[in-house]
Amino acid sequence: MADTTHIRLSDNQRLDWLRLIRSENVGPRTFRSLVNHCGGAGTALTALPDLARRGGASRPLRVCPRDEAEREIAVAQRLGARFVALGEADYPAYLQTVEDAPPLLAVRGNAAVLRGPLIAMVGSCNASAAGVKMAERLARELGAAGFGVASGLARGIHAAAHRASLATGTVAVLAGGHDRVYPPEHAGLVDALLEAGAAISEMPFGWEPRASDFPRRNRLISGVSLGVVVIEAAKKSGSLITARMALEQNRRGFAVPGSPLDPRAEGANGLLKQGAVLVTEVEDIVAVLRPIIGRPPPEPPMEEPGSAASDDAPAPSARARIIALMGPTPVAVDDLIRLSGCSPAAVQTTLLELELAGRLDRQRGGLVALL
Amino acid sequence: MADTTHIRLSDNQRLDWLRLIRSENVGPRTFRSLVNHCGGAGTALTALPDLARRGGASRPLRVCPRDEAEREIAVAQRLGARFVALGEADYPAYLQTVEDAPPLLAVRGNAAVLRGPLIAMVGSCNASAAGVKMAERLARELGAAGFGVASGLARGIHAAAHRASLATGTVAVLAGGHDRVYPPEHAGLVDALLEAGAAISEMPFGWEPRASDFPRRNRLISGVSLGVVVIEAAKKSGSLITARMALEQNRRGFAVPGSPLDPRAEGANGLLKQGAVLVTEVEDIVAVLRPIIGRPPPEPPMEEPGSAASDDAPAPSARARIIALMGPTPVAVDDLIRLSGCSPAAVQTTLLELELAGRLDRQRGGLVALL
Repeated sequence: MADTTHIRLSDNQRLDWLRLIRSENVGPRTFRSLVNHCGGAGTALTALPDLARRGGASRPLRVCPRDEAEREIAVAQRLGARFVALGEADYPAYLQTVEDAPPLLAVRGNAAVLRGPLIAMVGSCNASAAGVKMAERLARELGAAGFGVASGLARGIHAAAHRASLATGTVAVLAGGHDRVYPPEHAGLVDALLEAGAAISEMPFGWEPRASDFPRRNRLISGVSLGVVVIEAAKKSGSLITARMALEQNRRGFAVPGSPLDPRAEGANGLLKQGAVLVTEVEDIVAVLRPIIGRPPPEPPMEEPGSAASDDAPAPSARARIIALMGPTPVAVDDLIRLSGCSPAAVQTTLLELELAGRLDRQRGGLVALL
Repeated sequence: MADTTHIRLSDNQRLDWLRLIRSENVGPRTFRSLVNHCGGAGTALTALPDLARRGGASRPLRVCPRDEAEREIAVAQRLGARFVALGEADYPAYLQTVEDAPPLLAVRGNAAVLRGPLIAMVGSCNASAAGVKMAERLARELGAAGFGVASGLARGIHAAAHRASLATGTVAVLAGGHDRVYPPEHAGLVDALLEAGAAISEMPFGWEPRASDFPRRNRLISGVSLGVVVIEAAKKSGSLITARMALEQNRRGFAVPGSPLDPRAEGANGLLKQGAVLVTEVEDIVAVLRPIIGRPPPEPPMEEPGSAASDDAPAPSARARIIALMGPTPVAVDDLIRLSGCSPAAVQTTLLELELAGRLDRQRGGLVALL
């Protein structure tokens, strides 16, 4: 029986997707705008330099060369990884609903775990013994209840959650490339989790994770999951970023309480005050998520094959009018359309051009600013 | 300017009230029924033996003799205590709204604290150092915010809460008589709290507290307070009884969270799951209670002077019909009225008679059973 709910890229399309997402100034959101604008990744690759030039790029935009992408695919294959595209069967169903979901995920291990329900567990890397014990207990019991456990491979809570769910299936979301596991001492943990679980990354092979890559990675931890459980998170911590992402992604928030005198409990207690579900045992989580599991995954928001092209460059006067309305203060795209008197397509294309030229800052709530 | 919102008993009336509440089989609820039925405590004292006999008492009911009540008043005066009646100015305003509020409270210390807003703090007598520290911090800050702190003088959390609010005003609710402080080593703590605060008891002087007196006392801790804060309460503990009473009395519930691995946090975490407000700092409490403080105390539900008498004994056939409908299985008073075909007054009087004869068990929700 044919799978009608998923797309399947050809090798050539996959190569185009990889080249496009690895090109300069192209992130997941721009990728989506480009494919919608140009009708496909292949045509987008051709259009890229012109779009960036029209957006005012000071130098030619770097398009990822074909052989570079082919080399990355070869490296991936040697490591036992493969690229799964947004909309394909092995792409985590819940991640597809996220606005800035990566178009391609490099996946190692057992992709079956990505098709089942996942729950994220996050918390401090300086966890207490009690925190580690709690993480182990919940991860083990979530596994027994049929959930995969997603986390970020960090020391402390993350590692405890992965280890306790090795047999039942756990997903490690990497902040760098598959060949740059961080922290390095968890390379063995990754190997161990690949049998029942998987490691995933949106970053290029060879990419050494930097501090700014972790918040970016955190949106994937919450994005693949039905909900996020926070155990021992300090006031300003990556765990709280993940919890905030989860909220924005409409995921369920859970937190394990702790003494107000324990600074490691401050973040989790704060989440509880904001309405997170209090967790002392696994049933507190399962009771909330059980009703959601049955629901079919949402439709993929973008389809590669057969999209219609609409590569009309805005008239120079229209482009100038739109840019004149913008500045360092964020404005709504809707206001740009209204005040410029230009068509929505002209405004969107102008924004895409600026984005590729590295001159656009997209912010939450449909706001844009000039850089 | 005359105080029109409060009653004031004469010495004779006060003596009658004390005799009535100290008489056999008369608790706060029966006291209220009797005064309503007979029109006053004095006439109730006269009617008591007949009512009990009609209810089928196996031997004459013991009415507290006048000289015994006079002796108790004299003992109270020597200890610096006085009897404050329900409805009088110094009776804790919030306690008046409680269904089984004691008609008389023996009060030692500074009654001003009883007129201000009170918050109950309860928790384990085997508290951890962290629990004690948290109790001290909250009690101190509640005092600074203008709240009196009510508790039960027990070891651990109770004592910590009292000690930290000695200067700002704390209320110790005793399970026994004023001359039987429990635990005995807290006699000094009581002396210390009397200057800014008060100790209150509904029990007779000389009464040694038994285990069953503590749940009874707990309803007063929550009853005098706007809300109850639970710190470190095990699964089945007196603190949880107080929290349940608070709920039944429509008081606000607060709880300080703790690690799920700490058995001392189990009760508080359970309350949080049931909707108690999570507390990590005093503002969490104050923000909820501040809007209530301004409200005028509710009207006293019963007035002694000038009540109308209605001492009609039910016809023997009616009484027999009502009793025949009852048994060890609790039934609703409304059903008794409907099924017996008797007047509500006849049913209520019959129940009062049974109560005084020690043959009635009143349960929650207006249910009654024959003992």
